Amino acid sequence: MAGVTRKTSQFLITANRLHRNFSSSSTSNARVGFIGLGNMGTPMTLNLMKKGHTAVVYDIFPEAMTTVQGAGAVVAHNPAEVAEKSDIIVTMLPNSSHVMEAFNGENGILQTVKPGSLLFDSSTIDPDVAKQIFALSDKKGCLFMDAPVSGGYLGAVAGTLTFMVGCEEKEFSKAKEFLVDMGRNIVHCGGVGSGLAAKLCNNMLLGITMAGTSEALNLGIRMGLDPKLLSGILNTSTGRCWSSDTYNPVPGVMENVPSANDYKGGFGTALIAKDLGLASASATKTGSSIPLGSLSHQLYRLMSTQGYGGKDFSFIYQFLKEMESK
Amino acid sequence: MAGVTRKTSQFLITANRLHRNFSSSSTSNARVGFIGLGNMGTPMTLNLMKKGHTAVVYDIFPEAMTTVQGAGAVVAHNPAEVAEKSDIIVTMLPNSSHVMEAFNGENGILQTVKPGSLLFDSSTIDPDVAKQIFALSDKKGCLFMDAPVSGGYLGAVAGTLTFMVGCEEKEFSKAKEFLVDMGRNIVHCGGVGSGLAAKLCNNMLLGITMAGTSEALNLGIRMGLDPKLLSGILNTSTGRCWSSDTYNPVPGVMENVPSANDYKGGFGTALIAKDLGLASASATKTGSSIPLGSLSHQLYRLMSTQGYGGKDFSFIYQFLKEMESK
Repeated sequence: MAGVTRKTSQFLITANRLHRNFSSSSTSNARVGFIGLGNMGTPMTLNLMKKGHTAVVYDIFPEAMTTVQGAGAVVAHNPAEVAEKSDIIVTMLPNSSHVMEAFNGENGILQTVKPGSLLFDSSTIDPDVAKQIFALSDKKGCLFMDAPVSGGYLGAVAGTLTFMVGCEEKEFSKAKEFLVDMGRNIVHCGGVGSGLAAKLCNNMLLGITMAGTSEALNLGIRMGLDPKLLSGILNTSTGRCWSSDTYNPVPGVMENVPSANDYKGGFGTALIAKDLGLASASATKTGSSIPLGSLSHQLYRLMSTQGYGGKDFSFIYQFLKEMESK
Repeated sequence: MAGVTRKTSQFLITANRLHRNFSSSSTSNARVGFIGLGNMGTPMTLNLMKKGHTAVVYDIFPEAMTTVQGAGAVVAHNPAEVAEKSDIIVTMLPNSSHVMEAFNGENGILQTVKPGSLLFDSSTIDPDVAKQIFALSDKKGCLFMDAPVSGGYLGAVAGTLTFMVGCEEKEFSKAKEFLVDMGRNIVHCGGVGSGLAAKLCNNMLLGITMAGTSEALNLGIRMGLDPKLLSGILNTSTGRCWSSDTYNPVPGVMENVPSANDYKGGFGTALIAKDLGLASASATKTGSSIPLGSLSHQLYRLMSTQGYGGKDFSFIYQFLKEMESK
């Protein structure tokens, strides 16, 4: 904890300086760069454009940019070109190495970024990588914040995402002013890296509760209980959780959830396995004991090795359930 | 599953016969026998007496009966004497062997029970033991139901318990008519044993979510997050669960929970370890895979071996957290 405090003080000093630089301009109608136009990045960019921002975009796969280009976004050839043409940049990429490459690679953001730029990463990555990028950005006179999201694809489309933001308190109002153009709840979690810390803790608990709910429902069904009845009991008792009352993993219990649609869409098993891997790494670095988090990680990893990485993570119910002999 | 169906059909036949026997009388103002006057049994008996029932009681510890005796209950010398003087009997005991002894022991209920008596066991025991007692009671012309509760001591005092009832559907209205004198939600779960099945599934998921919430909060705190802020994020995100939003294990996050009172009161670690042991046994019998349930069982068991069996089970947060070197 002493190390965290020391780092926080250091951030405070640099952040104060940056605050003076950036506070001279407003985020409204800023030129926004967006890197990573996947399932999340595309609707987030469209929402920014609807709110009056001009957008400069880049994705390693040119076809990923077709939709936003059709809506008027300018297509750049690399992250450096995005940075040249933007005041605020958002990255939304699969993992830590992609984000580091987008910032610090040969044609990365930091090659051309203008001092005073505001940089947000909404990817789910290692909090320590976010801290490294904060330090590198700081040297260029820019302010970097981790701002991972919850709410998934539907939240991205509706503009109702929750952003968990890691930045000094003084910088938060500026972050909020901009992020509300893509989301509904903008939560300040603490210094840089803390948005990611909150996201990883939530997703670890999500992975655990989904596995636990699946175990409880499978056990109950095998003991002769009706899954809808048992879910109703759990949802009004002490076992109540989001995985049971909002995203039930047993087909037939709820409508409009992946379990009602052959586990298509939703939150992929390979993605939650990735998030649990990041949580495990953070637990090891901080000396935190996570027996259930670690076991859940291995279960979703096993599902991925068995070929179910593309299924929604609630497929763990089917994985635990006895299958037909092969 | 075939075995379950076969057993259900068998119960249906015997239950139909019993229904004819018992349906001739009403449960209102019935003479009620109550065996097991502990933390739960005492307030449950007091509520029955408030609702107009006369009570005949027995506990292996005479001093446990002082309160209900003061309120006008008749004290018996053994379960057989309770059965002689009652039309309806409720048992509320620590474990399977106590319940079997109360029914089938030398001075047990089944020695003297009157044909047509209605027998409820509200203990948390092995569903297979409940099925055995159903069969033994059936031979005496009595109807046995498993009716475990949720809601704890406060629910018992307030008369707001949830009863999870295992009986044939035709018998349920009779059960409900009586059990509402001690509870608010009376839920029919299926045939005999299914009330216990539902209770064990819920408590297994409870044990898992409490361990998972404790892991997530401990990890977050060690990553520099404020536990109240992180709990707020979890409670409005996909990690939401009862263990986080109603019974938070970190001191200072909520009031009026055991974590705010040195983990006194509440649901003892040794008791949830017992329930998880029953869930594990049921999982083994039914061939159900419960990786997180099994690990949680061992964690609460370890806490008990380390001397924390009497603490509320949310003490698992303290158990996972790094302690001072010894």
